[in-house]
Amino acid sequence: MTRSIVFLSDFGFRNEWVGVCHAVIDKLAPGCSVVDLSHGIPPLDVQAGALLLADSLPFIRHDTIALAVVDPSVGRDRDIAVEAEDGRLFVGPDNGLLSQAWRVAGGVKSAVSITSASIVLEPISPSFHARDVLAPAAAHLALGAPLTDLGPALAPETLAETRLAEPLVEPGKITCEVLDINRFGNVQLNVRSSQLVAAGLDRAERILVETPTGGGGVARTVLTYADLSSGDWGLMVDPRGWLSVICGNPVNAAQSLGVAGGEVVWLSVERAEGG
Amino acid sequence: MTRSIVFLSDFGFRNEWVGVCHAVIDKLAPGCSVVDLSHGIPPLDVQAGALLLADSLPFIRHDTIALAVVDPSVGRDRDIAVEAEDGRLFVGPDNGLLSQAWRVAGGVKSAVSITSASIVLEPISPSFHARDVLAPAAAHLALGAPLTDLGPALAPETLAETRLAEPLVEPGKITCEVLDINRFGNVQLNVRSSQLVAAGLDRAERILVETPTGGGGVARTVLTYADLSSGDWGLMVDPRGWLSVICGNPVNAAQSLGVAGGEVVWLSVERAEGG
Amino acid sequence: MTRSIVFLSDFGFRNEWVGVCHAVIDKLAPGCSVVDLSHGIPPLDVQAGALLLADSLPFIRHDTIALAVVDPSVGRDRDIAVEAEDGRLFVGPDNGLLSQAWRVAGGVKSAVSITSASIVLEPISPSFHARDVLAPAAAHLALGAPLTDLGPALAPETLAETRLAEPLVEPGKITCEVLDINRFGNVQLNVRSSQLVAAGLDRAERILVETPTGGGGVARTVLTYADLSSGDWGLMVDPRGWLSVICGNPVNAAQSLGVAGGEVVWLSVERAEGG
Repeated sequence: MTRSIVFLSDFGFRNEWVGVCHAVIDKLAPGCSVVDLSHGIPPLDVQAGALLLADSLPFIRHDTIALAVVDPSVGRDRDIAVEAEDGRLFVGPDNGLLSQAWRVAGGVKSAVSITSASIVLEPISPSFHARDVLAPAAAHLALGAPLTDLGPALAPETLAETRLAEPLVEPGKITCEVLDINRFGNVQLNVRSSQLVAAGLDRAERILVETPTGGGGVARTVLTYADLSSGDWGLMVDPRGWLSVICGNPVNAAQSLGVAGGEVVWLSVERAEGG
Repeated sequence: MTRSIVFLSDFGFRNEWVGVCHAVIDKLAPGCSVVDLSHGIPPLDVQAGALLLADSLPFIRHDTIALAVVDPSVGRDRDIAVEAEDGRLFVGPDNGLLSQAWRVAGGVKSAVSITSASIVLEPISPSFHARDVLAPAAAHLALGAPLTDLGPALAPETLAETRLAEPLVEPGKITCEVLDINRFGNVQLNVRSSQLVAAGLDRAERILVETPTGGGGVARTVLTYADLSSGDWGLMVDPRGWLSVICGNPVNAAQSLGVAGGEVVWLSVERAEGG
Repeated sequence: MTRSIVFLSDFGFRNEWVGVCHAVIDKLAPGCSVVDLSHGIPPLDVQAGALLLADSLPFIRHDTIALAVVDPSVGRDRDIAVEAEDGRLFVGPDNGLLSQAWRVAGGVKSAVSITSASIVLEPISPSFHARDVLAPAAAHLALGAPLTDLGPALAPETLAETRLAEPLVEPGKITCEVLDINRFGNVQLNVRSSQLVAAGLDRAERILVETPTGGGGVARTVLTYADLSSGDWGLMVDPRGWLSVICGNPVNAAQSLGVAGGEVVWLSVERAEGG
């Protein structure tokens, strides 16, 4: 049976880029099920794509092929397919996009450069390897082709990697940054709940949330949105395991903080004035 | 054969929320066909979601499982699966979102609270029951699991319900509200064509459309967009059976009326001035 | 085996229009794979839809049914199904939307008007033939129904056609127009690379890009985005074969040019001042 493909990119849905990749997969591997994990990765944001793929692995079938495309240097990067130590297969550009996922999957077992004339669609558009190289490679893997059919082997140590910026965790204080802002204005931070514990902030009743622009508020830890009254500030572990700043409806946390992706946020125990 | 799932939510496509639910379904029920009815329900608008599901039933296979998620109180609401009297299956939060659909389907035959350890994905994220509770439940139903596998039975009379606001229909006048505004600026009203007849407005050649902000125009009943010349105002029964205010291209009815969802609109027979 | 359907429209994803057509196809042809090529065609832009379908044919399975819906005159246009000389099947309104694709496919072999009572869903909504006429027709074709099941034959010469505006190509100069602007601000022009050669611009080191509003820059021909440094201007053949104006990140070509779809752009060899 044809294996399924999970597909993520920064393509959005304004154009046909996602759709034509689906058409190519349907052409090469009829009946292949393609799950669109997300095509809303911020344009060219390799780090956000890498993180989403890594965070999502537990929810993706083990025998699904992961096809990921966020490629500011399309036409220059090598196109790679990677088998992880746990057997998972990844297809994407060699710019670190796949690296956080393969680390979750135990590291790289083997990798190839996708150049086989029997795989790629000629002529390859220099600016759309997703359609002409990566989607065909994923389709062939879904059909059961071995990795070695796609092209020559690559030494794992030559593959590009990305790593997430780590927050600075001090007693009573965390200096972190914004990973993402969602539809409801929730501000996702690069902080795991274990780091909140390490800073002693999990026991604080009032946590000051501040930004360089002066925006901020006083939050408490909550389990979910429903724990907040209107206008309240909360810190919640989000579904991907990241700490997020949220506000009770109708206040928008991102707007109140005045932050965008990549910007700094400080979390600290609020000290009583004059106390 | 695996049954199909129809999926609607207020998740949008900016994030991976829709995609990761698809991944979970693909993992639990390989080959299950999932139709995305809409993920553009206005955020947290339970009423809009309830209405869309109910209106769409005639176009959905009878043996398809309906998975619906609009849940301002996620983590607090019960998660339910409902079998309607006509045999249709619905999965969603117990906040009324499913209630207009099950009334169309003859009412509730049986209902369960989705809590079975063999169904839900642990640890359940308090803010993402769609991924960890609802999508898995829908996948198991698609595979043919009986409702009772999902959790303990619920008394139908304990389930939350929503009802649509009814317009005020008087001779020559209807006071109604905006259900939705679409991509082309069409203004969907909570009025059925039978109510236009009841008010006698179907026979009026000129119908005054007014709003509290002073926006408005004089419309006539039309069958479709093509019946309007540029700038003309029309009242049309839309594909879901609701009366809609439309304007001939390039005029935008919603902008000209100055209305948003939930706001009041008055329809009345235009009286000749000084006539 | 059920054939697949490729679906494109100007519906967007804000409403349920795309989703309810999927539901109808799933109801009539269970297991039919539907590829969403794009639903981001600019609203009512028949020309853009026609061009996308024609450009995408090489990437679509030969036995896939193409369902296309961009229909400013819905309810007035005939709904048609067309078999091209090469055997491809197209379903859409009779407004030229399918015409550029069937020309690529060798011209019209036969055509029918979709009116058969065994195909359409009654009552047909005058403003949503996609759901009630076109999607059902595509589903029946996917199941293997002959074209003649859909309704009476139409004479090919009575079908509406559209043609793309051709650029004016002169020695050292091209007067063209904007086809589309993408997510990254790239400006797609109605110029093929052969026309760049015909004007002698392919050999120019510096190509002046100008617009009536005074926006513009000096570009060079490049293969892909990665060939540009920050702020550089380039002319690139895009993945669909059209010449596009691009700028090195973070400059947005469309904003710098100050152009929208359909507007004029001039390309010419830059002459040295006073040279």
